[in-house]
Amino acid sequence: MAEPKTNELMEKIVSLCKRRGFVFQSSEIYGGINGFWDYGPLGAELKRNVKELWWTSMTRFREDVVGLEATIIMSPDIWRASGHVDTFADMMRECPMTRKRVRADQVDPVSGVVYRFTGAKAKATGFTVEKAFAFLLKKGEHPESARKKAKEFYALGSIDAGMKDLAGIELIGEATSAVENSVDFHPESNVMLSEARPFNLMFKTYVGPVESEENVAYLRPETAQAIFAQFKNVLETSRQKVPFGIAQVGKAFRNEVTPRNFTFRSREFEQMELEFFIKPDEAIEAISGTVAKPETKGHPGEPQSNWGWQMWHQYWVEERIKFYDNIGLPRTTLEEYWQKPEELAHYARATVDLLFKFPFGTQELEGIAARSDFDLSQHERFSRKPMGVFDDDLRAAWAKLDDVKKQELTKRYYEARARYLTKTGMDSEKAAKKAKEDAEGLAKGQYIPHVIEPSAGVDRLILALISNAYAEEEVTDDKGKAETRVVMRFHPRVAPIKVAVLPLLKNKPELVAKSREVFELLRREMNAFYDDGGAIGRRYRRQDEAGTPFCVTIDFDTLGEKPELLNTVTLRDRDTMQQTRVKIDELLPMLLQRVR
Amino acid sequence: MAEPKTNELMEKIVSLCKRRGFVFQSSEIYGGINGFWDYGPLGAELKRNVKELWWTSMTRFREDVVGLEATIIMSPDIWRASGHVDTFADMMRECPMTRKRVRADQVDPVSGVVYRFTGAKAKATGFTVEKAFAFLLKKGEHPESARKKAKEFYALGSIDAGMKDLAGIELIGEATSAVENSVDFHPESNVMLSEARPFNLMFKTYVGPVESEENVAYLRPETAQAIFAQFKNVLETSRQKVPFGIAQVGKAFRNEVTPRNFTFRSREFEQMELEFFIKPDEAIEAISGTVAKPETKGHPGEPQSNWGWQMWHQYWVEERIKFYDNIGLPRTTLEEYWQKPEELAHYARATVDLLFKFPFGTQELEGIAARSDFDLSQHERFSRKPMGVFDDDLRAAWAKLDDVKKQELTKRYYEARARYLTKTGMDSEKAAKKAKEDAEGLAKGQYIPHVIEPSAGVDRLILALISNAYAEEEVTDDKGKAETRVVMRFHPRVAPIKVAVLPLLKNKPELVAKSREVFELLRREMNAFYDDGGAIGRRYRRQDEAGTPFCVTIDFDTLGEKPELLNTVTLRDRDTMQQTRVKIDELLPMLLQRVR
Repeated sequence: MAEPKTNELMEKIVSLCKRRGFVFQSSEIYGGINGFWDYGPLGAELKRNVKELWWTSMTRFREDVVGLEATIIMSPDIWRASGHVDTFADMMRECPMTRKRVRADQVDPVSGVVYRFTGAKAKATGFTVEKAFAFLLKKGEHPESARKKAKEFYALGSIDAGMKDLAGIELIGEATSAVENSVDFHPESNVMLSEARPFNLMFKTYVGPVESEENVAYLRPETAQAIFAQFKNVLETSRQKVPFGIAQVGKAFRNEVTPRNFTFRSREFEQMELEFFIKPDEAIEAISGTVAKPETKGHPGEPQSNWGWQMWHQYWVEERIKFYDNIGLPRTTLEEYWQKPEELAHYARATVDLLFKFPFGTQELEGIAARSDFDLSQHERFSRKPMGVFDDDLRAAWAKLDDVKKQELTKRYYEARARYLTKTGMDSEKAAKKAKEDAEGLAKGQYIPHVIEPSAGVDRLILALISNAYAEEEVTDDKGKAETRVVMRFHPRVAPIKVAVLPLLKNKPELVAKSREVFELLRREMNAFYDDGGAIGRRYRRQDEAGTPFCVTIDFDTLGEKPELLNTVTLRDRDTMQQTRVKIDELLPMLLQRVR
Repeated sequence: MAEPKTNELMEKIVSLCKRRGFVFQSSEIYGGINGFWDYGPLGAELKRNVKELWWTSMTRFREDVVGLEATIIMSPDIWRASGHVDTFADMMRECPMTRKRVRADQVDPVSGVVYRFTGAKAKATGFTVEKAFAFLLKKGEHPESARKKAKEFYALGSIDAGMKDLAGIELIGEATSAVENSVDFHPESNVMLSEARPFNLMFKTYVGPVESEENVAYLRPETAQAIFAQFKNVLETSRQKVPFGIAQVGKAFRNEVTPRNFTFRSREFEQMELEFFIKPDEAIEAISGTVAKPETKGHPGEPQSNWGWQMWHQYWVEERIKFYDNIGLPRTTLEEYWQKPEELAHYARATVDLLFKFPFGTQELEGIAARSDFDLSQHERFSRKPMGVFDDDLRAAWAKLDDVKKQELTKRYYEARARYLTKTGMDSEKAAKKAKEDAEGLAKGQYIPHVIEPSAGVDRLILALISNAYAEEEVTDDKGKAETRVVMRFHPRVAPIKVAVLPLLKNKPELVAKSREVFELLRREMNAFYDDGGAIGRRYRRQDEAGTPFCVTIDFDTLGEKPELLNTVTLRDRDTMQQTRVKIDELLPMLLQRVR
């Protein structure tokens, strides 16, 4: 297989996505909207398949995970508790004249002479600081800052180019100093940037008829928090006990400053997140005597009651790799990256990123984080609603422990809680008191569950599947001419169309009738496509580009021209292009086995 | 079956939804957020089933419909074209002091003496108009309006109560006139309301780092418009020809002033919309000689090439009723309401509402609208991108028409286009010119497709299914005592759990092993639930409340205590409560037939 070069490959993928209806630019007829992508007919099916496989593997095939479907807009208190209101931000710097912002870490260095602006004159008519002031006021500037800005600012070289808003105005400046490789100027306006300030990445809106501070709400930047907020409701209604998980698939939004790499980093995206709640290690040790920890790499097998968080974490890393393997991203296409201690979020005990080699670089597909009891603790603190669980097994086991063990476990649990509480800014005396209460709770069978979070992005997974599936081959056409075959080698489980049914000719009623019969048989159970347009070779090529793993052709032999082939069809395999003769009766079970 | 009274019934339904994990209030631990609801484990499965059945019936089982999955945030130009920016609004009146708004048509009449406010004094310290001005400025009021407001306003009776924002301030007013049953005062502040102004129901946000007018975007208030905006992309990539449809399922948002009736009218909801594109009647007549129109009520059968919009409209009304019938809302539970001419949107030719009798009243479940070529025409006009299609059949047929026919069809098409164009505000000369061009296009095989739109709300459908399923029965328990059985009679196709597998006892390893075997067999193909907790009667009741249509019990006979019953189980039917003995070998196909 010829492997196109990186950028060229990405261009080919984007082009195929558009041409075949996998992905369109959102609002394309209006010039698009940066960071938003729509899924066309084939893309929508591909995405549905992926989400369905995730959901089924998480919920139907597991007894210890249940589903949730929460809203995108939630109480803003949730984002205070999670820390998103305060810290989910990029550092940004602003051009004080155009108010355009750039990410503080993405300013290109420039060199030149710095001018101090002290006024301006219109090219046609006179211009004064007063007029600049009026202009800025009109643009919604606060009077005080307008007054300041109209007087003086610094810019690099000629600043005319970027000042489109001040068209027709010639600025009066005087050279001051020279800079070299400075990252302090806006790339478009050349005006000196303001200090870096945090810019929150959450999309903000107002719920209710008044646009006031109290009605601010956010589009969720992740689906996870809804799971924590509903943890108690789910626990109480689902007959689950810790360890168990809650799964959710849904849209999330991040107002990325620079969306990029096609659908990889977009502003509206979909997540598949599992929060798997486990007992703290101290509870495990009280119940089982010991805490099992990973000794070897690889899948640790079926969950055991003595697993500590490290075993669960390893288990979920391996389960997730198994999932990808199952849908056509073999383990060899993934890289397992264990975050270094200094890279970890402050609450995380360990995080593994599963990386995939996209045409534009190796990037994260999913993160599997061991998040301790941080999340539920935060919501308990902010909502003042208890988030802990009562564990009968723990209480019973605790009563049988000797005092040394009791003290040891209490101390460890106390220390972990005190560490968390102190980090929240609680004063140390209060934190010690609360941590003591928590530790006493442990002896009564109470604790706040810890969590392992496998969090996957649907859109980047789709892009990984598309990148991985894309292949070009040199083949020889019917007339012996060399041509390039573009083929999307999707795993049959995720392929948007599972099988195409093709009558050899469309103007032979018997062929058509038999083809329709086969088509009806197949589409009862899987996505099937009926295509009678053009030469059979061209129809195969079209299905290759759509990633359809199987084509079924009905010809005169199907009708019994060769009696021994009566009611057989040609089954053509997308990847090998081999054609085999299959009895219609055996077609459905054979295909079902391969697409499920 | 006892039928609880309306309000009582609604309360019971809300309570069961919470208790069993169908629906939770969003962000409940933070006091909730008005108009937002989460689906718990059972609700999420119920909703998934409904969406999956809609999607499958629309796309997999039809060759003339393909899917789309577009973003929630799109270019705001889309909402200008659709009219939502200008007209998707409720008329609201505002309290000028508290800025709280009420719907103009929902102000309760009040009586009393009207005071003219001319100043205020703080109860503790002196208060002046200047201070009121400063206060209003600080609250973000524009200086000009703050100045005006700080001087004078009118209110009813004592206004202290509502002026929480001015706490500690005593207002100075003088009585002017008396009013009776006036709807001009805010119900909370008692302050005289401003004139009614339109308040747009779209949630607004900003895309990109600057909150400026040019970066405004909206959360889509419906999924339909994305389909129109991507019409050409889909047409060009999907090998479809008119007539064909594009289906989409997804979230939509409306900033309802008064969300109500549980999940029925919420601010975040999900829609299942189909836009089915058809040829204009003039094209049909040119091709087929005549245009078939409905003559009888009921389903008109398989689509025919001579169907005009009325046949297609009737067809989709009947298809949609068939869908509801298929998932447990029989035709008898639905009311078909044909909107009267004066109720129709200006572009609609006919709209049928399918109504369902909710406990709180008969309300719309779905609307099926014949929307003419309004939508694509609007997007053509606003995007300046051609939205018409080229129809080979039409061009060929047109060439064979006699001149009288040509003239007649051209005239009719011209008149329809001129009517549309004039309504857009285009001056009549320009409209006539453009309509003439369009009519000439028809002769060349070109037209803008018309559309039939079946638009269903997922959440209200879920609520209808829950309402319809809810039943209470007097039954006799194991000990001969009368008790009330609450049972959710979901159609097996939508039921969240299809089958529960229950070992008679949980402490008999042979029973457990056999039960696990049966459970594994079933859950490969359907949602199954394993429950070994409590008396078998209580376990049945729990499944009744969850709406599980089948329970399978494994007992000692299964193990061969009565040899003739070896490897048989008890299959209990939720609705009849009848128990039959079924061979394990026959269980899966029997259940599959009933849940699919």
